[in-house]
Amino acid sequence: MILFGLTILNSGVPLSMLCAVIGLAFAFFLILAIMRHSSGNERMREISAAVQEGAKAYLNRQVKTISVIAVVIFILLFIFKDHPTAIGFVIGAFCSLAAGFIGMRVAVLANVRTAQAASIARLNALRMAFNGGAVTGLLVVGLALLSVSIFYTIAAKMIGSDAAIRSLVGLALGGSLISVFARLGGGIYTKAADVGADLVGKIESGLEEDDPRNPAVIADNVGDNVGDCAGMAADVFETYAVSLIGAILVGVLTLAGNPSAIVYPFVLGGISVLGAICGVLFVNVARGKPVRVLMGAVLTNALISAILFWPVTHRLFPAGLTIAGTLRSPAQLYFASLVGLIMTPVIVALTNYYTSSHYRPVQKIAHASETGHATNIIAGLAAGEHATALPVLCIGAAILVTFHLAAVMSMLSMAGIIISLDSFGPITDNAGGVAVMSNLPKEVRAITDELDAVGNTMKAVTKGYAIASAGLAALVLFGSYVQELSQHVTARGDVFSYQFSLTEPKVIIGLFIGGLLPFIFTAFSMDAVGKAAGAVVREVRRQLQAKPGILTGQDRPEYGTCVDIVTKAALREMIVPALLPLVAVIAVAVVKPLGAVVLGGLLVGTIVTGLFIAIAMTSGGAAWDNAKKFIEEGNLGGKGSFAHAAAVTGDTVGDPYKDTAGPAINPMIKVVNILPIFF
Amino acid sequence: MILFGLTILNSGVPLSMLCAVIGLAFAFFLILAIMRHSSGNERMREISAAVQEGAKAYLNRQVKTISVIAVVIFILLFIFKDHPTAIGFVIGAFCSLAAGFIGMRVAVLANVRTAQAASIARLNALRMAFNGGAVTGLLVVGLALLSVSIFYTIAAKMIGSDAAIRSLVGLALGGSLISVFARLGGGIYTKAADVGADLVGKIESGLEEDDPRNPAVIADNVGDNVGDCAGMAADVFETYAVSLIGAILVGVLTLAGNPSAIVYPFVLGGISVLGAICGVLFVNVARGKPVRVLMGAVLTNALISAILFWPVTHRLFPAGLTIAGTLRSPAQLYFASLVGLIMTPVIVALTNYYTSSHYRPVQKIAHASETGHATNIIAGLAAGEHATALPVLCIGAAILVTFHLAAVMSMLSMAGIIISLDSFGPITDNAGGVAVMSNLPKEVRAITDELDAVGNTMKAVTKGYAIASAGLAALVLFGSYVQELSQHVTARGDVFSYQFSLTEPKVIIGLFIGGLLPFIFTAFSMDAVGKAAGAVVREVRRQLQAKPGILTGQDRPEYGTCVDIVTKAALREMIVPALLPLVAVIAVAVVKPLGAVVLGGLLVGTIVTGLFIAIAMTSGGAAWDNAKKFIEEGNLGGKGSFAHAAAVTGDTVGDPYKDTAGPAINPMIKVVNILPIFF
Repeated sequence: MILFGLTILNSGVPLSMLCAVIGLAFAFFLILAIMRHSSGNERMREISAAVQEGAKAYLNRQVKTISVIAVVIFILLFIFKDHPTAIGFVIGAFCSLAAGFIGMRVAVLANVRTAQAASIARLNALRMAFNGGAVTGLLVVGLALLSVSIFYTIAAKMIGSDAAIRSLVGLALGGSLISVFARLGGGIYTKAADVGADLVGKIESGLEEDDPRNPAVIADNVGDNVGDCAGMAADVFETYAVSLIGAILVGVLTLAGNPSAIVYPFVLGGISVLGAICGVLFVNVARGKPVRVLMGAVLTNALISAILFWPVTHRLFPAGLTIAGTLRSPAQLYFASLVGLIMTPVIVALTNYYTSSHYRPVQKIAHASETGHATNIIAGLAAGEHATALPVLCIGAAILVTFHLAAVMSMLSMAGIIISLDSFGPITDNAGGVAVMSNLPKEVRAITDELDAVGNTMKAVTKGYAIASAGLAALVLFGSYVQELSQHVTARGDVFSYQFSLTEPKVIIGLFIGGLLPFIFTAFSMDAVGKAAGAVVREVRRQLQAKPGILTGQDRPEYGTCVDIVTKAALREMIVPALLPLVAVIAVAVVKPLGAVVLGGLLVGTIVTGLFIAIAMTSGGAAWDNAKKFIEEGNLGGKGSFAHAAAVTGDTVGDPYKDTAGPAINPMIKVVNILPIFF
Repeated sequence: MILFGLTILNSGVPLSMLCAVIGLAFAFFLILAIMRHSSGNERMREISAAVQEGAKAYLNRQVKTISVIAVVIFILLFIFKDHPTAIGFVIGAFCSLAAGFIGMRVAVLANVRTAQAASIARLNALRMAFNGGAVTGLLVVGLALLSVSIFYTIAAKMIGSDAAIRSLVGLALGGSLISVFARLGGGIYTKAADVGADLVGKIESGLEEDDPRNPAVIADNVGDNVGDCAGMAADVFETYAVSLIGAILVGVLTLAGNPSAIVYPFVLGGISVLGAICGVLFVNVARGKPVRVLMGAVLTNALISAILFWPVTHRLFPAGLTIAGTLRSPAQLYFASLVGLIMTPVIVALTNYYTSSHYRPVQKIAHASETGHATNIIAGLAAGEHATALPVLCIGAAILVTFHLAAVMSMLSMAGIIISLDSFGPITDNAGGVAVMSNLPKEVRAITDELDAVGNTMKAVTKGYAIASAGLAALVLFGSYVQELSQHVTARGDVFSYQFSLTEPKVIIGLFIGGLLPFIFTAFSMDAVGKAAGAVVREVRRQLQAKPGILTGQDRPEYGTCVDIVTKAALREMIVPALLPLVAVIAVAVVKPLGAVVLGGLLVGTIVTGLFIAIAMTSGGAAWDNAKKFIEEGNLGGKGSFAHAAAVTGDTVGDPYKDTAGPAINPMIKVVNILPIFF
């Protein structure tokens, strides 16, 4: 047993690389399996190609814009920091972008095939859409694990283990920074196109969703891919990589001298790949209601992780581990990691309660719509706020009974399946779009609509997971910031320890500044969506005025100009909010009377308010969306009723909430918490 | 000079009592002056009487409901704490209620006379409304100063100075707890009646604001008085009393042995009365634009305070004062207090920028209304978030360059004039109602409308002040909580010091729980408004169906049943949110693995998120309101346009934001921060 323990210790990192390769190979196999299916008729392929073209055009431009910023930071790191960190930054940035690109490409392959599969049976469509999402999930997890482990292995050989771990922070920063841009740019794009298309198309001209006569319809579908697929994939790559690196960093700083501390996160990362593969296999053999099948996959993954954690924990820490002065037995460590594991389904279930149309919160919003737009909005805002309570108390409880390191690492082992579920939504959404634009029979649309509603809930619940793990990961990063400072040596050679007590006015000031960041970050993000959507509205109005034949079907709308306008607007508008956390952290670090202690307060302040705002926005947004769907199913007067009009308003308000501002808080919190580790 | 210093030291508390009496006498003189003016014709007096009757009926029932809770707490304090604290609690609770009662009575006297004065000239109406508000301002400040100083003087003689100061906390708790109920109950009442009246009256039946055919019209006007006058007066009594007591407490705990520390807050309180009187006199002699005249009063008060601070600071601290280990000269102390003084006009100006229709933020919301309800809402939500940035940075800067004790005490000296301005709004609002319902000429309504718009901005800017000073006062209370614990002696006789470091997981958990409170508190508050408004809507619909003659003017609506329904609904709905902070604090204090350290985090967490949410809600709400007014002035299509309909939605959403949930956060933050001082 001890021998096996030593084997894991020596081969833990290579083993995790092997798992990563298995995950990537499985993803490749899934792609081949997807490609074998029919991509439908001529018209479907044509639409799919148009969407793909627009998405590629956007991503190319986004890469150019972000590259300029990335190159500047790379040069600064190369000059003022060390070379390995700068190289790590580039690798992190590149992989984050690559994850986005691949996620988007696969989604476009899968959505047209999902529409085609829906014309056979619901189960086929479900599996197709899920497998498409699973490719992203496995690729992201595999890529993150592989890049971190290869970089660490090579760097450790060249500059030693300690320096290698430090330069991993560069990789984390690269991933985070890029994903802030990708999340924001994509989020602004998708919602500007969506809101713009809705405002003119649905409200002014009375067109249905995805009507090909709407000039912004292709831009809207492109948006789903660049926002929900590419942006999301970059985001989760970052979450996974940062959690992994943060866990290694804190492990090394707090458990100095114990080599298992480095290996443990890698091994857990490997387990997450294996767990995700089992989850994917489950979906491909199970039958039944879509939500049940997908939840079954989550539980399968949790079960696999729970089983594999036991031997790994016992063999890596045969004598237990001393944390904060107390020796914990292997069994205690195991149960601590179980808490994180249990938290995932618990948070998923809680978010599901607040955002699914089967429960009271969403139905309350639907009922409030009967008295008008304003009462719908008030109910939705209150619902979002209510939805923060239980998840945050859960996180608090997890911190209390365990230590956040264990919680974040075991949550990590669910990443693969969660990303797969998250990517499922936009694929079904787009499949619906393809079905409508290709005039497929109504029954096909009915299936994609049903799966789309499931996808909405999945998107919401996975966001709950993403925020909880982002919050925990950020706390881990804060922990390593404090650890770094505790070994601070002044110019005169004295060892100096910073205090972060709430009784220190500078900590309070830091909490205020940090607490402010999510507020103005989301304010700027929502403004950005408003401005970009305004540009779409003006362009669509212009086209409809110039060619009145568009509405009668005689003239063909110019989809390309809409795509072009949103692209430019989204890239222009993402700059200010994305740079905001960067500028704030640097300003606090540099401006004289502030400095390290204020910065410490800032990090925590951002986590505290960020967590609440992110949950309130993503849950509130999803609840509004599903309240509208609840009415559209024929309740409270159904489509076209007064209540429905009010519910559409709520849904539109919820759009930038749940798809732009809310989810972008995740990478923002982490950028804020990674940056100070450099200073 | 030293002799004079000794004189102030010995007679500081009696001197402040004298100032309080002068203030009360001046308020009494103002009441007589107001009464001398005409209360208009028969019809006006009749309406005024109906409103007064409804308001009295509500307040009587509210007193009964609150009394039950107050008696329970009194008994608990009497048994488990000491008798003086219990008696202090009753005095605080009684004065808070009395302030509310008096504020409401005077407002009802003044509003009908303002309507009458508006038929003479704008200046007369302005002065009448302001003097009505000033009565509340002076009464509240005088009452708070007098109750605290008399209680302290008597208690100090009976049980000694130290014990007397400790039992002052009971008085603060009494004031705070009652004002949470009064703020919430009144806030729910006023907005339920307002939203309910608007939804059926304006939207369904096309009636104008204050149309006497609307069965909810009297309830709506009663609401202005019980919410904006009575609730607000109770709230500011609490702010003033708690700031005063908090300052005394921290002064005594941190500057132990220096008797000036006790006297200083009292003397500053006395100055605030004199400053407020000068401000009131200024309004009664100045001429010009209403906003300028009112802002002139603020500056007059600031000037008086700045002048009087100099000799008082020098004579109470002739040798300066040692704060956190550094000796500060009297001049340094003086400049520290000037910072707080300057902060008041700065925060007023900032809030004015974000909420007045003359500047970009409000106009942006108005423009966003052109593309519909949803874009109006998104713009308003973003505007509220933006509005948090500068005030919070200001507060941070004030904490940085001074110590919050100085800032909160000098802000305190502006309380009288600020309350006067705050009470001005509802009086003009009601004057407009009286004018419409009594069929006064259009020109009269034009004047009251103009003053109403000024009142809206005043209400918003004074809320900015109230929140900033509440935040600082809460920090002062947190400081005294920490100080109390630093002298903590365990059962075994060891002196034990608690640590509130951000590196302690329990502090983070506390920050999360505390951060959560404002979120669910406001969520419950908004739900409460929604539910109570629903009850109004159903009743109005019932009346209009039973007596169709109401709309044609043939039947008289039953105003009384509406008043009755809102009364019951408001009192029922206020219980849960009002008890929430109480229950949370007690639960954290009592439940085993949590306790004192988590509680410390909770206190700060509530301040951090509470500050942001309160500013975002009150500023956002006022901005929505004024965006609607901006359109009604004829911009962007004016009344009846598509943009106007969207702006009305925003205004309705903003109602519970700015008048129920947002302002109720102030007393909530302070209840949360006072309670733990007991444990």
